[in-house]
Amino acid sequence: MEPIAVDLMGTDRGPQVVARGLADVGDVPLVAVGTADALASLPSGIEGVEASEVIEMTDDPASAPRRKRDASMVVAAQLVKQGRASAAVTFGNSGAAMATALLKLGRIRGVARPAITVELPVPGATPTVMLDAGANAEVQAAWLRDFALMGTAYARARLGIDRPRVGILSIGEEPGKGTTLVREAYELLEGDPQVHFIGNVEGRDVMSDRVDVVVTDGFTGNVVLKALEGAASAFAHAVLGALRAGGDDAVVSHALERLVPLWNELTPDATGAAALLGVDGLFLIGHGASNERAVASAVRSARQLVLGDVVATIRRYESKEHDGV
Amino acid sequence: MEPIAVDLMGTDRGPQVVARGLADVGDVPLVAVGTADALASLPSGIEGVEASEVIEMTDDPASAPRRKRDASMVVAAQLVKQGRASAAVTFGNSGAAMATALLKLGRIRGVARPAITVELPVPGATPTVMLDAGANAEVQAAWLRDFALMGTAYARARLGIDRPRVGILSIGEEPGKGTTLVREAYELLEGDPQVHFIGNVEGRDVMSDRVDVVVTDGFTGNVVLKALEGAASAFAHAVLGALRAGGDDAVVSHALERLVPLWNELTPDATGAAALLGVDGLFLIGHGASNERAVASAVRSARQLVLGDVVATIRRYESKEHDGV
Repeated sequence: MEPIAVDLMGTDRGPQVVARGLADVGDVPLVAVGTADALASLPSGIEGVEASEVIEMTDDPASAPRRKRDASMVVAAQLVKQGRASAAVTFGNSGAAMATALLKLGRIRGVARPAITVELPVPGATPTVMLDAGANAEVQAAWLRDFALMGTAYARARLGIDRPRVGILSIGEEPGKGTTLVREAYELLEGDPQVHFIGNVEGRDVMSDRVDVVVTDGFTGNVVLKALEGAASAFAHAVLGALRAGGDDAVVSHALERLVPLWNELTPDATGAAALLGVDGLFLIGHGASNERAVASAVRSARQLVLGDVVATIRRYESKEHDGV
Repeated sequence: MEPIAVDLMGTDRGPQVVARGLADVGDVPLVAVGTADALASLPSGIEGVEASEVIEMTDDPASAPRRKRDASMVVAAQLVKQGRASAAVTFGNSGAAMATALLKLGRIRGVARPAITVELPVPGATPTVMLDAGANAEVQAAWLRDFALMGTAYARARLGIDRPRVGILSIGEEPGKGTTLVREAYELLEGDPQVHFIGNVEGRDVMSDRVDVVVTDGFTGNVVLKALEGAASAFAHAVLGALRAGGDDAVVSHALERLVPLWNELTPDATGAAALLGVDGLFLIGHGASNERAVASAVRSARQLVLGDVVATIRRYESKEHDGV
């Protein structure tokens, strides 16, 4: 495979953290994009491509990729467009990253809107894929069908699930429950042979093994994602506090030994990046606060999506918005 | 105060569980409503009012209170209407409970739509009040302002917060972020002197101490509530599993001793019931699967709302939907 292009710049913790994360990735061909200074901190054996500009967290997302044409995330996307990289991963300004991907890679024909695709941890089972997690605050029913197809492709490539169960997030399982949008999307998905549609699912199902792919609008998806991130953090702190309150250090350290691997599984860092599906090339957006472990797992996630050929699979779907036209 | 009317019937666990829960409430005047059989299981000292019918979980919510005029939850609402009870609490069919409250108590003048009001646990701080948690899947901006006023009254009465911080749930803190609905509601709330409006809040804030009252549409609110319930359950099971996997029973039992009070604080049973605010009388709806502890805490919660005079406070608000008319 062509190397995965990783943007070193524009993160909360600086390019050194991203560079160190790359050293942990293992056997994946990489190309790092950054300023000359940042490239100097690269571990040996990783190719560097220089970019003269950086899109900062404070830059206006929509205009940034046009104003800073030689910014590192723009150059990374360009490498994908040119076929010199199989995927791009950035941990910078996420709004600018979406704009960059759309500008440089364009949409896959027939996909109305790209969607941010995330994995929600499920203890003891494969994660639940959820989209859209924030690219489109307001959506149409036909877009939700696109999301169902793209989520199916993602779950196959990344999680190895042959026939992923797809549900629409709603407030009741019965077909009539929810908003007008949900009811319209239900009708579209019910008849689509390319999707293993299981109907409506509820909030409590997203962290369960009841469903593999959850489709929703970007407003609800983003609120749910962040609510779960907040809950994970609140629970972890509360458990730690409760254990420590007893004062017996042996109990605390024994318990923590067993709980740390669990936090690692249940915190968002475990995946490390969200894929912007629907653009014509693989583009992943990680958290600006990503640590070394999150960087490494983002790159591994990109690798699996490359090997699973997720973009080509989405290109091949029939229907999408132009169904029957 | 007048007694709190508690519906014994129509729950998943049977009237005995509700009756036993009432025994644990302590010093609160109560009147229990149920069939003659159910009343026989009441602890001594609790007054009973007989009802000949029961609304079951399988009954059609909208028509149930009209078809079963002598159903226990209908009789409980009637007692509030007649001034013979200060509040009604049911653990039965929640859709039918909403229909019953609207039919028997009516809306408070000026409130466009009642909203389901829940408390989300925040470790180490007062809970966050969220509304609407599911009464109205689709809402208008003016209704969100009503919710802000009602949530303010609730947080004062129930949590003793003098100037509760109110936020609109959105996908970015900046004023322009989110949907058209959020932007319109933002403008309405920004100018309302009766509300301590702090702007948009995000999903991660709901289980934090950043905000006291979160207003949102009933679709998003219900999805978030259930996602957090699912997460709490997933985390608790995962932590228990991880602790047990080590095999050392002493560590497990020591750790559990400290964690059980935490689960009790962080699970939805801790509150026990949601208030349907906006109807002209206090009406609370508990989980159908409520255990004794949840029943007792629902009644205590009703008592605080009675003492805090939440319904009268909502009646007194100016503006609401008729602002300026």
